[in-house]
Amino acid sequence: MAERTRIVIVGAGFGGIELAKALRRLPVDVLLIDRNNYHNFQPLMYQVATGGLEPDSIAYPVRRIFRKYRNVSCRMAEVRLVDWERSRLFTSIGTVPYDYLVIATGSRTNYFNFEDVKEKMLTLKSLPDALNIRSYVYQNLEKAIANYSGEPLEEIMNVAIVGGGPAGIELAGALAEMKIHVIPRDFPDLDTSRMSINLYQSGDRILNAMSEQASAKALEYLSDLGVNVLLNSRVATYKDDQVFLEDGTRFPTDTVIWTAGVTASPLEGLPESCVLKGNRLLVDAMNRVSGLDNVFAIGDVAACTSVENPRGLPMLAPVAQQQGRHLARNLGRLLRRQELVAFRYRDRGAMATVGRGRAVADLPGWKFQGSFAWFVWMGVHIFSLVGFRNRLSALYHWAFNYLSYDRPLGLIIRPYRRQSD
Amino acid sequence: MAERTRIVIVGAGFGGIELAKALRRLPVDVLLIDRNNYHNFQPLMYQVATGGLEPDSIAYPVRRIFRKYRNVSCRMAEVRLVDWERSRLFTSIGTVPYDYLVIATGSRTNYFNFEDVKEKMLTLKSLPDALNIRSYVYQNLEKAIANYSGEPLEEIMNVAIVGGGPAGIELAGALAEMKIHVIPRDFPDLDTSRMSINLYQSGDRILNAMSEQASAKALEYLSDLGVNVLLNSRVATYKDDQVFLEDGTRFPTDTVIWTAGVTASPLEGLPESCVLKGNRLLVDAMNRVSGLDNVFAIGDVAACTSVENPRGLPMLAPVAQQQGRHLARNLGRLLRRQELVAFRYRDRGAMATVGRGRAVADLPGWKFQGSFAWFVWMGVHIFSLVGFRNRLSALYHWAFNYLSYDRPLGLIIRPYRRQSD
Repeated sequence: MAERTRIVIVGAGFGGIELAKALRRLPVDVLLIDRNNYHNFQPLMYQVATGGLEPDSIAYPVRRIFRKYRNVSCRMAEVRLVDWERSRLFTSIGTVPYDYLVIATGSRTNYFNFEDVKEKMLTLKSLPDALNIRSYVYQNLEKAIANYSGEPLEEIMNVAIVGGGPAGIELAGALAEMKIHVIPRDFPDLDTSRMSINLYQSGDRILNAMSEQASAKALEYLSDLGVNVLLNSRVATYKDDQVFLEDGTRFPTDTVIWTAGVTASPLEGLPESCVLKGNRLLVDAMNRVSGLDNVFAIGDVAACTSVENPRGLPMLAPVAQQQGRHLARNLGRLLRRQELVAFRYRDRGAMATVGRGRAVADLPGWKFQGSFAWFVWMGVHIFSLVGFRNRLSALYHWAFNYLSYDRPLGLIIRPYRRQSD
Repeated sequence: MAERTRIVIVGAGFGGIELAKALRRLPVDVLLIDRNNYHNFQPLMYQVATGGLEPDSIAYPVRRIFRKYRNVSCRMAEVRLVDWERSRLFTSIGTVPYDYLVIATGSRTNYFNFEDVKEKMLTLKSLPDALNIRSYVYQNLEKAIANYSGEPLEEIMNVAIVGGGPAGIELAGALAEMKIHVIPRDFPDLDTSRMSINLYQSGDRILNAMSEQASAKALEYLSDLGVNVLLNSRVATYKDDQVFLEDGTRFPTDTVIWTAGVTASPLEGLPESCVLKGNRLLVDAMNRVSGLDNVFAIGDVAACTSVENPRGLPMLAPVAQQQGRHLARNLGRLLRRQELVAFRYRDRGAMATVGRGRAVADLPGWKFQGSFAWFVWMGVHIFSLVGFRNRLSALYHWAFNYLSYDRPLGLIIRPYRRQSD
């Protein structure tokens, strides 16, 4: 161990995994640390939240990914502090020294000035979050049909989603499909016309990282499914089980799902000078953290600013993956004492889906929407899942759900209680 | 509602589900109450605990079972008290009146005189229990490989299972297979020879409800897999992470799984005279609770005593299912003012599996063991799962696990902490 270069990667997200894989052929020892023992496929989290896929289909134990990689070790641990001056980490499993450190810790939900009410809201950033949403939605339906509490039915059944990015619209679409196809079958006595799904977007269009064409079509799809999309609508606060907008309107609901932003989650202990607004780390074109020789950052946590992207590259899986692969090559160059090469992001486009047969795609030079986009979306996502087993399992579930118009996974295994209740 | 006879069933286990289904053609309104929104297939719980099947494969939302049953309503609620004098229940969703009440509340883990240490132990009676075992086993493996705590490796890796019934031996066998096939692949640096799996049985044979032949073969299978089966071994206590036997021997382990007994869980408020030892309800041959006109009990909670079975029928799924179907016919007779017919249990035999290709079966007139028994066991269990989807899903997982010698579901989604830690 002592003779080989030791690379420590923190975070087993898209960036960390790609990097560790790509380091396979280098004469280095890789230690991959994550606070969970699994890698999860964030883009399909909303499917878990709405009972379309089970958690085991979109997550994969990290060790299994690296079963055949002799130079990669995996540890489940919390990293508490970087001591960059002495090249070591303090973690929940002790002190970990490194020759090179790669920070790939991603991002977490940003509640902005809603920190004080975050305990009343749900979010969709982790598997427990997704399972909480699934439980909570079904608990509320059970509550609505028993209606013992005397709460107005609207308050129990309504759902508010804050944020019109991919997570928000995919969740809104899936919930709307549940309202149309699943709830009437499972809860025939419930009057679903009393259930509204509101999506709040502060800007003037949803999916604002995509083309206007995609935004417009996604809006149309959501409206078709009965989602009330409220553009230019800023939520002022959430209290007494009511969402208050800045313009004074209210929406009574027990269920607010916050998808309105993320903030990077870097490690503690780094020099303040390299932490930018939004907690992203300032890195150079080689993904080296500003001012630190042997520390790199990739993915959401890295703000790779440039003239074209003054605010850094977008926080997307493909960026993290490309940076991971690129950094592996650069680390190879470092070992061979060669010059490092700057990273260049290749934008291969973006996709989002609102529901069955309703997706939007912006590929380079080709924008399209509808059923075909939906099949492409599905193919890309099944193919991107880690592990043959997960791909087969997702395919099986989707085929089943497609044929039956159903979302069959509705177990409330661990009931969710808002911390404020 | 007011004109039709109202039958309230408490408990959506094997008995409650069969009864509600069989009441389909009667002119009655059925209300099925369970504290969960799902029915779970208890006999395969150990597969969830050991990562062979996911929770969604062995559990099924109760409402989905009854989607097409017009006279069955389902409610998720806790029943707090029976007011049998006024024929009503007090529940978490309000007061529920009934014409006939059927108690099908099953059983729960019986810790006997280990109540004071139960928080240090795991058990296997519910889906959260099973997921806790899965998380805890993987957490301990992660802890062992990091070995930061300085705890002796044996203590972290060893597993003690208390109880040599089907649950105990199936769990022991599955954990032993993990030790042989899965852990060396996922944790190549761990020395599994330092991991012992001990199974404690107070009597002189395991599976003592089955034939001696089945017991002997199961013992042989467990020994083949490296499980230490300790017969005539009574656990005295569990403290300081050590299991103490009555004969003074000790076994250091963090992980004690208690499967050594169950006790019935009847409703509160029933007259004391009808609650027997072990909390079972004294019922007559028609499953009517002793002394109560319009209250019945079926399944584990009902002690249907007779000359042949002075301690009541065994607490098994087939008993509950047969009683459920029988009671539906008797309720029909009641409505038609006909004489009720006594229940007779038809024992169709028992099976248990220790691992891949290793099962034991006692069918009426035919006892057999080995690979064939294992295939029969698998066929019976797949066929018994509720819902086509679950059958297909279990088949898919088992085929995968069979071909790969793997147990692929190892996510630690919600880490488990013993309440005493």
